Amino acid sequence: MRQQPELIITVLTAPGDPEPLGIEAVRARAEVRFAYDEASLTATLPGTDVLLVTDFRTEALAAAWHTADRLQWIHAASTGVDALMFPALIDGPVIVSNASGTFDYAIAEYVLCTVLMFAKDFHNSVRLQVQHQWQHRTTERVDGKRVLVVGAGSIGREIARLLTAVGMQVHGIARTERAHDPDFISVRSQAELHAELAHADYVVIAAPLTPQTHGLFDSTAFKAMRSTARLINIGRGPIVNTADLVTALREGQIAGAGLDVFEQEPLPESHPLWDMHNVIMTAHMAGDAVGWEQALMNQFIDNLEGWLAGKDIFNQVNKKLGYAG
Amino acid sequence: MRQQPELIITVLTAPGDPEPLGIEAVRARAEVRFAYDEASLTATLPGTDVLLVTDFRTEALAAAWHTADRLQWIHAASTGVDALMFPALIDGPVIVSNASGTFDYAIAEYVLCTVLMFAKDFHNSVRLQVQHQWQHRTTERVDGKRVLVVGAGSIGREIARLLTAVGMQVHGIARTERAHDPDFISVRSQAELHAELAHADYVVIAAPLTPQTHGLFDSTAFKAMRSTARLINIGRGPIVNTADLVTALREGQIAGAGLDVFEQEPLPESHPLWDMHNVIMTAHMAGDAVGWEQALMNQFIDNLEGWLAGKDIFNQVNKKLGYAG
Repeated sequence: MRQQPELIITVLTAPGDPEPLGIEAVRARAEVRFAYDEASLTATLPGTDVLLVTDFRTEALAAAWHTADRLQWIHAASTGVDALMFPALIDGPVIVSNASGTFDYAIAEYVLCTVLMFAKDFHNSVRLQVQHQWQHRTTERVDGKRVLVVGAGSIGREIARLLTAVGMQVHGIARTERAHDPDFISVRSQAELHAELAHADYVVIAAPLTPQTHGLFDSTAFKAMRSTARLINIGRGPIVNTADLVTALREGQIAGAGLDVFEQEPLPESHPLWDMHNVIMTAHMAGDAVGWEQALMNQFIDNLEGWLAGKDIFNQVNKKLGYAG
Repeated sequence: MRQQPELIITVLTAPGDPEPLGIEAVRARAEVRFAYDEASLTATLPGTDVLLVTDFRTEALAAAWHTADRLQWIHAASTGVDALMFPALIDGPVIVSNASGTFDYAIAEYVLCTVLMFAKDFHNSVRLQVQHQWQHRTTERVDGKRVLVVGAGSIGREIARLLTAVGMQVHGIARTERAHDPDFISVRSQAELHAELAHADYVVIAAPLTPQTHGLFDSTAFKAMRSTARLINIGRGPIVNTADLVTALREGQIAGAGLDVFEQEPLPESHPLWDMHNVIMTAHMAGDAVGWEQALMNQFIDNLEGWLAGKDIFNQVNKKLGYAG
């Protein structure tokens, strides 16, 4: 058993964020410090054993990294750990874990909702409602439609299961091809992405942001998609080239986009995406269903208690790949 | 085999409607006449053997009924036949059939979409998008939530199956209680509606409009519902007392309403429902997915061909109950 009295845990939040829900349980086990930017992290990182990162967009850690003198473990209270993947951390001994599993089902429901909204043209029904306009239209059915989920990790898998449950035909793209996957009709490698895009009615990005996925959806990818297809991104904004997406939507290369994540968040007020009637968007909240903050803290406490009792840390991120695998 | 050359089929459409898609197939089998109001129907009904009604709101038939001298069969190209259920028709020998089955799956998808939109607050995300507002909110999950489907006919059953597939707990209300239903956890009788309403997170009206269901959802019903519950109506507008619904939504007796049908259609431009942020609405189109008009005509042709060959008409409406049972 590690000596608990000496344990120091620093919580790295976004500037202005309140203390994370449930932090008392951490205080019962360690000295808890808070940081929210480079200066405050530089002041708190020396002596810190464990870093809990709740700001998935942080740039402070890379900047303050030289002051980490005793750090053993970084837990990200998010699925994506792209903001943490700088060379000194990747190449060093510090363990990184993430919140894999916490958001999966809520995100799958969100994706199903956007798929159905596109099929039923429900985003435009809301616009018509705002304008007091009664306008009958013919809609689409989703059963039997083909989906390509890019990213076959735990979130992609949950999406596949839920969309299959409503009668959709779900295929996947992973880093490497897989035979006989229980949740996907087929799983091809990223090298076959463009060939697969040509067959999909809905394309869902559920991949981590890594050097391999950065800008993966560019004009070439959009040209490979069907003009009737919709793109849904619940992964990370920079996987999509936003300028190319706007062009693809304007020129009818694809039929629509459902976006919860963006290259720049919040999306700038003047961005053309806001006004596009073939775009459905939300404020990076797809996974944040009731109880999400407590669930994140519970998961960290579970991991912490195990570690203090000498067990392996779970949800460890493969730092070479950039995600928990 | 009935003598086809003498067969006369009149098509009763809404004023201004084009000829129904696929009507050529009917012309190949009969003399086809058209009517759209009392005067035109009074002129065409004498000599008519079969009446195809595509206007589910028609008031012309009751008015012109005294001129029907040879009518044997009325086929409604809709699931609801409430507009046809006047005493002289109910009590007479003319057979009535409906389009039961054609719209079921599309309507089930529509209901699932509205359920998910309420859980994810997606109608308000569209409003925020229109205003260029980035606003993170915590959402809900739908799995494990309890649904009460009022009306356990073919549409209600398809809704139950689809909502069950995404992890919801689905109960039903039918005219009479049923034990061991394959699609519902339980099916209680309408007498137990108010008791059941107290347990439901989502209440879906999938019942026909009959004297028994007219005004079924009134202030007493809304008071029996949970303040967090949402009502979804894809049945018929008059099953809901609209004034009571507006009060219930304003006073927080219920949390939201998803409406595809209304007491008055189109909904008047000045109606308070349009501006309510806890209301999702569409223009009586939940079942109208791509190919719906051809599917309706194919179903009528199938029924017509069978009848001409001496078979029983299928989808016959029990005129005492007011629906195909």
